[in-house]
Amino acid sequence: MKILDMVKFTEDGLIPAIAQDAATGEILMMAWMNRESLHMTVESKRATYWSRSRNKLWIKGEESGNIQEVSNISTDCDADVILLKIRQVGAAACHTGHRSCFYRDVTENGDALIENSSPLFDPKQVYKK
Amino acid sequence: MKILDMVKFTEDGLIPAIAQDAATGEILMMAWMNRESLHMTVESKRATYWSRSRNKLWIKGEESGNIQEVSNISTDCDADVILLKIRQVGAAACHTGHRSCFYRDVTENGDALIENSSPLFDPKQVYKK
Repeated sequence: MKILDMVKFTEDGLIPAIAQDAATGEILMMAWMNRESLHMTVESKRATYWSRSRNKLWIKGEESGNIQEVSNISTDCDADVILLKIRQVGAAACHTGHRSCFYRDVTENGDALIENSSPLFDPKQVYKK
Repeated sequence: MKILDMVKFTEDGLIPAIAQDAATGEILMMAWMNRESLHMTVESKRATYWSRSRNKLWIKGEESGNIQEVSNISTDCDADVILLKIRQVGAAACHTGHRSCFYRDVTENGDALIENSSPLFDPKQVYKK
Protein backbone atom coordinates (compact mmCIF):
# COMPACT_ATOMS: atom_id res chain seq x y z
CA MET A 1 0.00 0.00 0.00
CA LYS A 2 1.88 3.02 -1.35
CA ILE A 3 0.29 5.61 0.93
CA LEU A 4 2.34 4.17 3.80
CA ASP A 5 5.48 5.50 2.07
CA MET A 6 3.87 8.74 0.87
CA VAL A 7 3.09 10.17 4.29
CA LYS A 8 5.66 11.21 6.87
CA PHE A 9 5.78 9.54 10.25
CA THR A 10 7.60 11.06 13.22
CA GLU A 11 10.81 9.57 14.56
CA ASP A 12 8.55 7.49 16.79
CA GLY A 13 6.80 6.17 13.70
CA LEU A 14 3.57 8.05 14.30
CA ILE A 15 1.36 10.50 12.41
CA PRO A 16 -1.46 12.60 13.91
CA ALA A 17 -4.96 11.74 12.68
CA ILE A 18 -7.95 14.04 13.04
CA ALA A 19 -11.43 12.48 13.03
CA GLN A 20 -14.17 14.74 11.66
CA ASP A 21 -17.87 13.93 11.53
CA ALA A 22 -18.52 13.57 7.79
CA ALA A 23 -22.09 14.83 8.10
CA THR A 24 -21.75 17.80 10.47
CA GLY A 25 -18.08 18.78 10.14
CA GLU A 26 -17.63 18.54 13.90
CA ILE A 27 -14.12 17.57 14.97
CA LEU A 28 -14.48 14.59 17.26
CA MET A 29 -10.92 13.76 18.25
CA MET A 30 -7.26 13.72 17.33
CA ALA A 31 -5.22 10.59 17.91
CA TRP A 32 -2.09 8.99 16.47
CA MET A 33 -1.51 6.28 13.89
CA ASN A 34 1.48 4.13 13.08
CA ARG A 35 2.03 2.37 9.74
CA GLU A 36 -0.02 -0.63 10.74
CA SER A 37 -3.00 1.39 11.98
CA LEU A 38 -3.04 3.52 8.82
CA HIS A 39 -2.87 0.34 6.73
CA MET A 40 -5.73 -1.18 8.70
CA THR A 41 -7.80 2.02 8.47
CA VAL A 42 -7.47 2.20 4.68
CA GLU A 43 -8.24 -1.49 4.28
CA SER A 44 -11.05 -1.91 6.81
CA LYS A 45 -12.54 1.61 6.59
CA ARG A 46 -12.71 1.57 10.38
CA ALA A 47 -10.63 4.15 12.22
CA THR A 48 -7.69 2.41 13.84
CA TYR A 49 -5.17 4.33 15.89
CA TRP A 50 -2.04 3.67 17.92
CA SER A 51 -2.61 4.14 21.62
CA ARG A 52 0.44 5.87 23.04
CA SER A 53 -0.73 5.32 26.62
CA ARG A 54 -1.46 1.61 26.20
CA ASN A 55 1.26 1.11 23.57
CA LYS A 56 -0.94 -0.97 21.33
CA LEU A 57 -3.09 -0.90 18.21
CA TRP A 58 -6.44 0.63 19.00
CA ILE A 59 -9.45 -0.14 16.86
CA LYS A 60 -11.59 2.79 17.94
CA GLY A 61 -14.76 1.47 19.59
CA GLU A 62 -13.44 -2.05 20.18
CA GLU A 63 -14.42 -1.76 23.85
CA SER A 64 -17.24 0.81 23.80
CA GLY A 65 -18.83 -0.27 20.51
CA ASN A 66 -18.49 3.34 19.32
CA ILE A 67 -16.61 2.54 16.14
CA GLN A 68 -15.84 5.09 13.42
CA GLU A 69 -16.73 4.23 9.82
CA VAL A 70 -14.33 6.03 7.50
CA SER A 71 -15.71 7.57 4.30
CA ASN A 72 -12.68 9.64 3.27
CA ILE A 73 -9.00 9.95 4.13
CA SER A 74 -6.92 12.96 3.19
CA THR A 75 -3.50 14.33 4.05
CA ASP A 76 -2.10 17.84 4.25
CA CYS A 77 0.47 19.73 2.18
CA ASP A 78 3.38 18.33 4.19
CA ALA A 79 1.81 14.83 4.24
CA ASP A 80 2.43 14.68 7.97
CA VAL A 81 -1.18 14.82 9.21
CA ILE A 82 -4.12 12.54 8.34
CA LEU A 83 -7.74 13.73 8.21
CA LEU A 84 -10.50 11.14 8.46
CA LYS A 85 -14.10 11.88 7.53
CA ILE A 86 -16.08 9.44 9.61
CA ARG A 87 -19.50 8.34 10.74
CA GLN A 88 -19.43 7.97 14.50
CA VAL A 89 -21.36 4.88 15.57
CA GLY A 90 -22.93 5.37 19.00
CA ALA A 91 -23.56 8.62 20.79
CA ALA A 92 -20.05 9.86 21.35
CA ALA A 93 -16.39 9.64 20.37
CA CYS A 94 -14.81 10.65 23.67
CA HIS A 95 -14.11 8.21 26.49
CA THR A 96 -15.56 10.83 28.87
CA GLY A 97 -18.96 10.38 27.23
CA HIS A 98 -18.85 13.68 25.35
CA ARG A 99 -19.68 13.68 21.66
CA SER A 100 -16.32 15.30 20.89
CA CYS A 101 -13.08 15.22 22.84
CA PHE A 102 -12.97 19.01 22.38
CA TYR A 103 -15.63 19.64 25.03
CA ARG A 104 -13.75 22.37 26.91
CA ASP A 105 -13.32 25.93 25.72
CA VAL A 106 -10.58 28.28 26.85
CA THR A 107 -12.06 31.37 28.47
CA GLU A 108 -11.54 34.79 26.91
CA ASN A 109 -8.72 35.69 29.31
CA GLY A 110 -7.03 32.30 29.02
CA ASP A 111 -7.32 31.52 32.70
CA ALA A 112 -9.80 28.64 32.75
CA LEU A 113 -11.54 25.89 30.80
CA ILE A 114 -15.32 25.66 30.65
CA GLU A 115 -17.35 22.76 29.31
CA ASN A 116 -19.20 23.49 26.08
CA SER A 117 -21.34 20.34 26.10
CA SER A 118 -22.66 17.59 28.36
CA PRO A 119 -21.70 13.91 28.32
CA LEU A 120 -24.03 11.64 26.34
CA PHE A 121 -23.14 8.44 28.16
CA ASP A 122 -21.79 7.39 31.50
CA PRO A 123 -18.24 6.07 31.02
CA LYS A 124 -18.66 3.74 34.02
CA GLN A 125 -21.49 1.97 32.20
CA VAL A 126 -19.64 1.75 28.89
CA TYR A 127 -16.16 0.79 30.01
CA LYS A 128 -16.71 -2.08 32.37
CA LYS A 129 -13.41 -3.23 33.76
CA MET B 1 -2.24 33.07 31.78
CA LYS B 2 -3.25 29.81 33.44
CA ILE B 3 -4.11 27.91 30.26
CA LEU B 4 -0.39 27.70 29.52
CA ASP B 5 -0.05 25.38 32.54
CA MET B 6 -3.33 23.54 31.93
CA VAL B 7 -2.43 22.07 28.54
CA LYS B 8 0.29 19.51 27.91
CA PHE B 9 3.19 20.32 25.67
CA THR B 10 5.43 17.62 24.18
CA GLU B 11 9.02 17.18 25.36
CA ASP B 12 9.90 19.66 22.62
CA GLY B 13 7.52 22.16 24.19
CA LEU B 14 4.92 21.95 21.43
CA ILE B 15 1.21 21.20 21.14
CA PRO B 16 -0.68 20.46 17.90
CA ALA B 17 -3.27 23.06 16.89
CA ILE B 18 -6.05 22.41 14.39
CA ALA B 19 -7.56 25.41 12.57
CA GLN B 20 -11.21 24.98 11.59
CA ASP B 21 -13.28 27.45 9.59
CA ALA B 22 -15.79 28.71 12.17
CA ALA B 23 -18.49 29.24 9.53
CA THR B 24 -18.23 26.11 7.40
CA GLY B 25 -16.54 23.58 9.70
CA GLU B 26 -13.86 22.94 7.08
CA ILE B 27 -10.51 21.94 8.56
CA LEU B 28 -7.95 24.27 7.07
CA MET B 29 -4.67 23.14 8.61
CA MET B 30 -2.85 21.63 11.53
CA ALA B 31 0.28 23.26 12.86
CA TRP B 32 2.16 23.43 16.15
CA MET B 33 2.25 25.94 18.99
CA ASN B 34 4.69 26.53 21.79
CA ARG B 35 3.87 28.37 25.03
CA GLU B 36 4.56 31.76 23.53
CA SER B 37 2.45 31.19 20.43
CA LEU B 38 -0.49 29.92 22.49
CA HIS B 39 -0.16 32.94 24.75
CA MET B 40 -0.08 35.28 21.75
CA THR B 41 -3.05 33.53 20.13
CA VAL B 42 -5.22 33.88 23.25
CA GLU B 43 -4.21 37.50 23.73
CA SER B 44 -4.29 38.75 20.14
CA LYS B 45 -7.04 36.43 18.80
CA ARG B 46 -4.84 35.90 15.77
CA ALA B 47 -3.62 32.38 15.13
CA THR B 48 0.09 32.22 15.96
CA TYR B 49 2.03 29.01 15.56
CA TRP B 50 5.57 27.75 15.99
CA SER B 51 7.22 26.97 12.68
CA ARG B 52 9.24 23.80 13.13
CA SER B 53 10.91 24.21 9.73
CA ARG B 54 11.93 27.83 10.27
CA ASN B 55 12.33 27.43 14.04
CA LYS B 56 10.52 30.67 14.82
CA LEU B 57 7.23 32.15 15.92
CA TRP B 58 4.84 32.26 13.02
CA ILE B 59 1.98 34.72 12.99
CA LYS B 60 -0.13 32.99 10.35
CA GLY B 61 -0.53 35.35 7.38
CA GLU B 62 2.32 37.67 8.33
CA GLU B 63 3.77 37.26 4.83
CA SER B 64 0.74 36.37 2.71
CA GLY B 65 -1.76 38.60 4.50
CA ASN B 66 -3.97 35.55 4.99
CA ILE B 67 -4.30 35.90 8.75
CA GLN B 68 -6.66 33.82 10.89
CA GLU B 69 -9.01 35.59 13.30
CA VAL B 70 -9.73 33.30 16.25
CA SER B 71 -13.27 33.17 17.62
CA ASN B 72 -12.93 30.14 19.89
CA ILE B 73 -10.20 27.99 21.41
CA SER B 74 -10.85 24.56 22.86
CA THR B 75 -8.78 21.62 24.02
CA ASP B 76 -9.40 17.89 24.10
CA CYS B 77 -9.91 15.41 26.94
CA ASP B 78 -6.16 14.91 27.38
CA ALA B 79 -5.48 18.65 27.01
CA ASP B 80 -2.76 17.86 24.51
CA VAL B 81 -4.40 19.20 21.34
CA ILE B 82 -5.73 22.71 20.61
CA LEU B 83 -8.69 23.42 18.32
CA LEU B 84 -9.09 26.92 16.92
CA LYS B 85 -12.32 28.13 15.33
CA ILE B 86 -11.18 30.80 12.94
CA ARG B 87 -12.16 33.17 10.19
CA GLN B 88 -9.66 32.81 7.37
CA VAL B 89 -8.82 36.20 5.91
CA GLY B 90 -7.97 35.94 2.21
CA ALA B 91 -8.82 33.11 -0.13
CA ALA B 92 -6.82 30.30 1.34
CA ALA B 93 -4.95 28.93 4.36
CA CYS B 94 -2.42 26.73 2.58
CA HIS B 95 0.88 28.01 1.24
CA THR B 96 0.16 26.02 -1.94
CA GLY B 97 -2.81 28.31 -2.65
CA HIS B 98 -5.42 25.73 -1.70
CA ARG B 99 -8.20 26.74 0.67
CA SER B 100 -7.27 23.90 3.01
CA CYS B 101 -3.96 22.10 3.48
CA PHE B 102 -5.96 18.86 3.25
CA TYR B 103 -6.37 19.10 -0.53
CA ARG B 104 -5.31 15.54 -1.33
CA ASP B 105 -7.43 12.45 -0.77
CA VAL B 106 -6.09 8.94 -0.39
CA THR B 107 -7.53 6.69 -3.09
CA GLU B 108 -9.75 3.74 -2.14
CA ASN B 109 -6.91 1.21 -2.46
CA GLY B 110 -4.40 3.40 -0.62
CA ASP B 111 -1.98 3.57 -3.53
CA ALA B 112 -2.20 7.24 -4.57
CA LEU B 113 -3.19 10.77 -3.63
CA ILE B 114 -5.62 12.77 -5.76
CA GLU B 115 -6.35 16.47 -5.44
CA ASN B 116 -9.84 17.27 -4.18
CA SER B 117 -9.72 21.02 -4.95
CA SER B 118 -7.90 23.61 -7.02
CA PRO B 119 -5.57 26.35 -5.78
CA LEU B 120 -7.19 29.74 -5.24
CA PHE B 121 -4.02 31.80 -5.57
CA ASP B 122 -0.62 31.49 -7.16
CA PRO B 123 1.99 31.06 -4.41
CA LYS B 124 4.62 32.76 -6.61
CA GLN B 125 2.53 35.93 -6.59
CA VAL B 126 1.83 35.82 -2.86
CA TYR B 127 5.19 34.81 -1.44
CA LYS B 128 7.63 37.14 -3.10
CA LYS B 129 11.15 36.38 -1.98
